[in-house]
Amino acid sequence: MTTLNPDDLPAVPDLHDAALAARLQALLDDKTKPLGSLGRLEALAQRLGLILGTEAPALREPQLVVFAADHGLAAHGVSAYPSDVTWQMVENFLAGGAAVSVLARQHALALTVVDCGVRHAFAPRPGLVDAKVAWGTADALQQPAMTDAQCAQALRHGIDLVRRLPGNVLLLGEMGIGNTSAAALLMSRLTGLDIADCTGAGTGLDAAGVQRKIDVLRRVLARHAQATEPLQALAALGGLEIAAMTGAVLQAAAERRIIVVDGFITTAAVLVAVRLRPHVLQRCVFAHRSGERGHALLLAHLKAEPLLDLGLRLGEGSGAALAWPLLVSACAILREMASFGAAGVARASAVAATVAV
Amino acid sequence: MTTLNPDDLPAVPDLHDAALAARLQALLDDKTKPLGSLGRLEALAQRLGLILGTEAPALREPQLVVFAADHGLAAHGVSAYPSDVTWQMVENFLAGGAAVSVLARQHALALTVVDCGVRHAFAPRPGLVDAKVAWGTADALQQPAMTDAQCAQALRHGIDLVRRLPGNVLLLGEMGIGNTSAAALLMSRLTGLDIADCTGAGTGLDAAGVQRKIDVLRRVLARHAQATEPLQALAALGGLEIAAMTGAVLQAAAERRIIVVDGFITTAAVLVAVRLRPHVLQRCVFAHRSGERGHALLLAHLKAEPLLDLGLRLGEGSGAALAWPLLVSACAILREMASFGAAGVARASAVAATVAV
Repeated sequence: MTTLNPDDLPAVPDLHDAALAARLQALLDDKTKPLGSLGRLEALAQRLGLILGTEAPALREPQLVVFAADHGLAAHGVSAYPSDVTWQMVENFLAGGAAVSVLARQHALALTVVDCGVRHAFAPRPGLVDAKVAWGTADALQQPAMTDAQCAQALRHGIDLVRRLPGNVLLLGEMGIGNTSAAALLMSRLTGLDIADCTGAGTGLDAAGVQRKIDVLRRVLARHAQATEPLQALAALGGLEIAAMTGAVLQAAAERRIIVVDGFITTAAVLVAVRLRPHVLQRCVFAHRSGERGHALLLAHLKAEPLLDLGLRLGEGSGAALAWPLLVSACAILREMASFGAAGVARASAVAATVAV
Repeated sequence: MTTLNPDDLPAVPDLHDAALAARLQALLDDKTKPLGSLGRLEALAQRLGLILGTEAPALREPQLVVFAADHGLAAHGVSAYPSDVTWQMVENFLAGGAAVSVLARQHALALTVVDCGVRHAFAPRPGLVDAKVAWGTADALQQPAMTDAQCAQALRHGIDLVRRLPGNVLLLGEMGIGNTSAAALLMSRLTGLDIADCTGAGTGLDAAGVQRKIDVLRRVLARHAQATEPLQALAALGGLEIAAMTGAVLQAAAERRIIVVDGFITTAAVLVAVRLRPHVLQRCVFAHRSGERGHALLLAHLKAEPLLDLGLRLGEGSGAALAWPLLVSACAILREMASFGAAGVARASAVAATVAV
């Protein structure tokens, strides 16, 4: 794959299975609890069962992957931090000192950092995958962020990476100074929402900084008005880590892995993937609604209901890691909770039992 | 303590410590992440540090305690389930098949079930504490749910139980058919909110059932119009498990344990405790906003911001168990994350660094 042809990407079939859905619902309804009383955890259990195609879903070797790259647009002051923070944070991930390192340790999630295009030469070491396509994207105000060949290579790297990873769950993380800009651009272009509604403070711009960022991004969109197809938009407006993530999401979906989506940037990559293969959405669990402006709107656009709402706006996969134990719980509920019959617990009285709750 | 004298209850001093709060905030701000970007997790870390009185909070031997009892009011059809379900679910907890059993196992939480007044004779066994005061409360429509002596004894049982438990965290759970009624009564009486705003479907009443429940509860409130002080209200309107929980909360607060509050009924017990000792609130972490009508209002009344909002309405401590890993994460962030200096990561640029986020 050296050109941007959607036909070269993994196929993602419809998971629809009404019989399995009914069996999962019956199982949940027969657990010793009032009907529906585990709320969103029950919907999550349903989804995990449907993705894995079983009434007894078990999560195996979960992989948290942090896709990292730099952005040409960062030169225009769209971030509160300098580009060097991207490689410095990659070092921090690998040294175990970042938030996502701490949370991955807590939950025994395998943590892999992928250099998709960081402006830095890393020494090889365990936990770091070299998938560098370029030393950051080009300045999208001047030219497409990626050439078609670069974008295709990044997508391919993401696909190949997932093929090599064990387990049945992919948790998405990212790092890249400037990448809320790339995500906002993709969101605006692919949803039709105004760039002002898609743009937030990122790592901590003040109001004037956000306004400057919006002005820059509006010019970028005008510069690439022709890039309306998902892959063209990805190349012109996106980032190397977003392209690699899009490839990874498509491959994970094709393999019927559970995809745990983190914050704004990972959701933007999922948006690109969903535009290419709509059934990707069936494999996604949205971990949280972030504090970054645009994320709530983007989730609503995808009709996604995130599990957590803690005002996080860190990225890295930190929200995905924080939501992880809820997935474990949902599976445990299905597999380990007793049924009314087995536990010898009386059901609701006849009147109440007819109530839809 | 055989009479209901508030002076006999544990003292709960103010935890206010501006110096420690400032040190905790400085520590969080120096972690390698944009300022405030871990959102509510940072506020949680602050709180846990303040409760335990340290910049490096560590959670030890967390105790999930399920307080169980029956309710005289259940005879009036205020629940969708028969009273026998209380003891049947106690058996289910002990056998490991209930939701809270599954979740406590997942998170290695010690699970203790306390028979505060279940209408059943249990065989003694590990994990079950006999603190039975009576075979359920009396019918509050006819007389106080508890005599003063019974209420005092239940409070004392809760106090003594916590004294014997190891660790520095108490996670609250409960089981008792009819206890959303007792919680609604206490909420209405102690907050002044109308009983209709405090009453919900519980385990699954339909709209007509909820209306009947409201009618019954309104008559109960009128019957005990004089019971306005917290302990009098507790005795007249509450439950044996709620009284024991109130004692446990007061003792845990006095010992400066972290108290993880579950759903509507445990929050009602905390409300009683807070009315008696206002600084109890400083020790509380509210796990979730439940789907039970009344809980959102009660949390707002306590100015409590729960961690999860998953539409749970099961009780048992299931929400407390689901929120538990977030507490572990908050402590790990404080103890394990690298500082900017130690990790060699650049800070935000001068302009952005002055921005309050």
